Amino acid sequence: MNNPFHTCHNSRIAGCDFAIYPMTDQFVDVITTALKEVDTSKVWVKTTDVGTCVRGKITHVFDVTKALFLHAAQTGYHVVFSGTYSIGCPGDSDGDVFLAEDDRRLNEAESKKIKQEVAGKFSLYPLGGGDYMNLIYDQIEAMKKQNIRVSSIHYATRLDGDGKDVFNGLEQVFVHMEHNGSSHTVMTTTISANSPSKKDVNSDD
Amino acid sequence: MNNPFHTCHNSRIAGCDFAIYPMTDQFVDVITTALKEVDTSKVWVKTTDVGTCVRGKITHVFDVTKALFLHAAQTGYHVVFSGTYSIGCPGDSDGDVFLAEDDRRLNEAESKKIKQEVAGKFSLYPLGGGDYMNLIYDQIEAMKKQNIRVSSIHYATRLDGDGKDVFNGLEQVFVHMEHNGSSHTVMTTTISANSPSKKDVNSDD
Ligand SMILES: [Ca+2]
Repeated sequence: MNNPFHTCHNSRIAGCDFAIYPMTDQFVDVITTALKEVDTSKVWVKTTDVGTCVRGKITHVFDVTKALFLHAAQTGYHVVFSGTYSIGCPGDSDGDVFLAEDDRRLNEAESKKIKQEVAGKFSLYPLGGGDYMNLIYDQIEAMKKQNIRVSSIHYATRLDGDGKDVFNGLEQVFVHMEHNGSSHTVMTTTISANSPSKKDVNSDD
Repeated sequence: MNNPFHTCHNSRIAGCDFAIYPMTDQFVDVITTALKEVDTSKVWVKTTDVGTCVRGKITHVFDVTKALFLHAAQTGYHVVFSGTYSIGCPGDSDGDVFLAEDDRRLNEAESKKIKQEVAGKFSLYPLGGGDYMNLIYDQIEAMKKQNIRVSSIHYATRLDGDGKDVFNGLEQVFVHMEHNGSSHTVMTTTISANSPSKKDVNSDD
């Protein structure tokens, strides 16, 4: 690694800055209930009026965000998860994180039980320089090997399938980037469940 | 410019991939009404179940997204705008865009009338390489010169103020990046209006 920002920690601090949007008058209840059902004790969590941030090991960051979305979605309301996963930001601090945890995922067993069709998309931003477009194309190819329908849209890659598979695919992409030595990786994603229309909900044409 | 992707168009194709989330049972009405009130004729628009994409000149992309959010927010419902502004992606196509438009903003007069306090955040990703952290820090400083309260949070910069000022600040940052020769700029933002709580809506602690 010749990138000065890469400091070769055994496990670097990953994070996800996200929000879950339930399109219902009951939105506070949907969020509160999901938070009660999900064990967040292996990540640092902070929620404000502009979103929730979780930090910790990659495996727990994905375990918790996937579980929160799946629990919210299984209410049956139209629910959208919008999040930015990040690792290796040179401006990041060492604080606000639990890394001394083992790799046992606290919510995997419960999440596995939830079957939920979703429509989503993701974009990958390898910020450490280099041949970043090829890194992106490789990860889109890897996503196609999951049990997910993958298609190309402006500014993102569309993903359709079961919510668990979509989150697992996103996690695999993120882990691949880390294993390939990307010094600073950002991945944005939006995942929608129970949309009242499979198309053109917001359309004016 | 020694970046092979920079082709020095007079005006390059900008885009925003976004969604507006009204946290109410009336979410379809809120979106439909906002779309009726906003003139989108100077941008290319496509809406699917995973979001809306607008493409065109920077000025019209911001004019339309700002207006849609402000019109949705003035319903009084808790409404969140979540979007990714992008320009210069090497994988982008030349299609799906109107660039032959003049610079007169079709929605500015109406937007100016809407007073709406918001809480937001943004993250800037200059993907063309180079000293990207300094580019980011410079733009955060520029944002502080707007009439907006600016603070630092994990993975983003928090913005509090009037909705128009926040969108104008974001637009200025994006235009600065373009003028400074950034070959590929991505900016993500989340902007929230009428949150029932100024803090910890989603909190578990
Ligand atoms: Ca909420």
